[in-house]
Amino acid sequence: MKLVEETIKEIRPVDPHWIDSARQRQLELTKPPGSLGRLEEVANRCAAIRESFALTASRPRIVLFAADHGVCAESVSAYPQAVTAQMVLNFLRGGAAINALARAGGIELKVVDVGVAKPLPLSSELISRRAAAGTRNFCEGPAMTQGEMNAALETGIELAYDSATAGCDLLGFGEMGIGNTTSASAIAAALTGEPTEAVVGCGAGADDSCMARKRSAIERALALHADSLESPLGILRCVGGLEIAAMCGFCLGAASRRVPVVTDGFIATAAAALAVRLCPASAGYLFASHRSTEPGHAHFLTILEQEPLLELGMRLGEGTGAALAMKVIQAAVAAVTQMATFAAAGVSNK
Amino acid sequence: MKLVEETIKEIRPVDPHWIDSARQRQLELTKPPGSLGRLEEVANRCAAIRESFALTASRPRIVLFAADHGVCAESVSAYPQAVTAQMVLNFLRGGAAINALARAGGIELKVVDVGVAKPLPLSSELISRRAAAGTRNFCEGPAMTQGEMNAALETGIELAYDSATAGCDLLGFGEMGIGNTTSASAIAAALTGEPTEAVVGCGAGADDSCMARKRSAIERALALHADSLESPLGILRCVGGLEIAAMCGFCLGAASRRVPVVTDGFIATAAAALAVRLCPASAGYLFASHRSTEPGHAHFLTILEQEPLLELGMRLGEGTGAALAMKVIQAAVAAVTQMATFAAAGVSNK
Repeated sequence: MKLVEETIKEIRPVDPHWIDSARQRQLELTKPPGSLGRLEEVANRCAAIRESFALTASRPRIVLFAADHGVCAESVSAYPQAVTAQMVLNFLRGGAAINALARAGGIELKVVDVGVAKPLPLSSELISRRAAAGTRNFCEGPAMTQGEMNAALETGIELAYDSATAGCDLLGFGEMGIGNTTSASAIAAALTGEPTEAVVGCGAGADDSCMARKRSAIERALALHADSLESPLGILRCVGGLEIAAMCGFCLGAASRRVPVVTDGFIATAAAALAVRLCPASAGYLFASHRSTEPGHAHFLTILEQEPLLELGMRLGEGTGAALAMKVIQAAVAAVTQMATFAAAGVSNK
Repeated sequence: MKLVEETIKEIRPVDPHWIDSARQRQLELTKPPGSLGRLEEVANRCAAIRESFALTASRPRIVLFAADHGVCAESVSAYPQAVTAQMVLNFLRGGAAINALARAGGIELKVVDVGVAKPLPLSSELISRRAAAGTRNFCEGPAMTQGEMNAALETGIELAYDSATAGCDLLGFGEMGIGNTTSASAIAAALTGEPTEAVVGCGAGADDSCMARKRSAIERALALHADSLESPLGILRCVGGLEIAAMCGFCLGAASRRVPVVTDGFIATAAAALAVRLCPASAGYLFASHRSTEPGHAHFLTILEQEPLLELGMRLGEGTGAALAMKVIQAAVAAVTQMATFAAAGVSNK
């Protein structure tokens, strides 16, 4: 856990004085005060994160983490587990929703295998950092060993560091993993104490009997692991996923390198909520992208203390919500950095 | 009114069979059914507008119409009237919010003078189509003559035609005109019968006494023009604005040429609502971009029968909301046109 601990130690809270300075600067720009609404709030926080008014958001990157889930043995998903690997191949060939959205938005996309059940064929497009061949069924034991969890956390941190070193000035993340809404729902119940019914949704399209199996699996897991759910890392190890651990590490790594980092839907926000519980200061670097239709999502947003930027009825994952929100964040940064002041433009102020 | 009438005659309703076909196609793409939420609805309508699944949205353009308002004589704005011309110069130099957002989004921006009070210096960047030196104070008489209104409507239509001919496959529009929230509020009251209090907001930052003057001006105008407010064009001529007439024409021209067209905030949506009242079939070509904080905006959205895509607390105009929503629409079109099918990608369906 050395890299995780060191990374957390490096995360400084976002400086509120910078946010105040950015607010002042917004008042000088040629627009009625506050008229860009949430774009101003976003830009002010980005300026504070970068500690600069010469900030950019012109090199956006999304990292997509894929892994499998042993809890699929409980028949908790509408799709067979093989779909995780099939979709990774779809990402590599450019045929998935996130490929289309990333291309449309000029966003670089990196795909990481953190633990898909069956090894994938070699591809120069795939970053292979397999911590295990998927998690174990958390109804029968912890999803991961300490070592597997640590490896996945480190993969996320290292990818954030790699992205920062490559010059990425705006990061997003997403996931693929059949069965992972069950894991995220278990995390929500364990983190917030909410009853299972409040945090379980239909995921990729579960019917009533599938929903019942999801609830049952989560309740059995929470009972089985009751003694280990006091800490965020205990929750992650017992009922989390390898891609969730990696995304959690990615949030911490981005915060440590002072890069704004954009969440995606329910599962990605589970990882962000774990990061915030591990290191509350990391919340200042996170931007909630959209409100998923998954009912548990709201509980994670509460932990982030954020309203998401978008609400478009989406529930796909892959980073698709992040891709859309990153365009709003780029616009916000463009406005605060490129707009003329009243004085410079010769525009009369009130 | 020949061009206006001919344009309206050319507008065909969007074919519901095409929307059904697009829905079917969405089910074949590698994602859980409906998981892209409103992006699917947007893409389906775009496909129906273009009557093609090989559609694009890669050549977006925003046209920004500027004009002045005689009702400024009633002290209804927080800013002096000279700001309209000053902001047009700011647009031409690239220093306004819409310039930053259009650049960030890769959206072409065209600026049109439809009737700024004081003629502007010649600029190769400015399209000069002055129908008048601003409107007259509508508390004292009709804002425009029939001829002025017609010229502004035709300017909007011609700019939509020009954009379609240039290959633009996604259009947006916005406005600049000190005093024009008062005009839009008067249009809202006249179109919907809502009381003045329900449709008047603070605009660019009116204080309480300024708000009272806005309400008073609108009530006097509605009484003065009572006999002419039965038709959309009567309302437009008596209490509208030259930029509002041009935007109304732009909506009609875009619908006639079957190009998706994106509204902006309160004033732009006033123009869209007038277009829909003039030609209900034009609604199928319009996309509501965002929910403005101006209270009257909701009434225009009701006429469009749409929920906007975004709600970001914005109230700036200039096309800034359109610029953001156009990125969502481009993403939606990219997904429906570029995603692999389950069969082609070898991904197991449910």
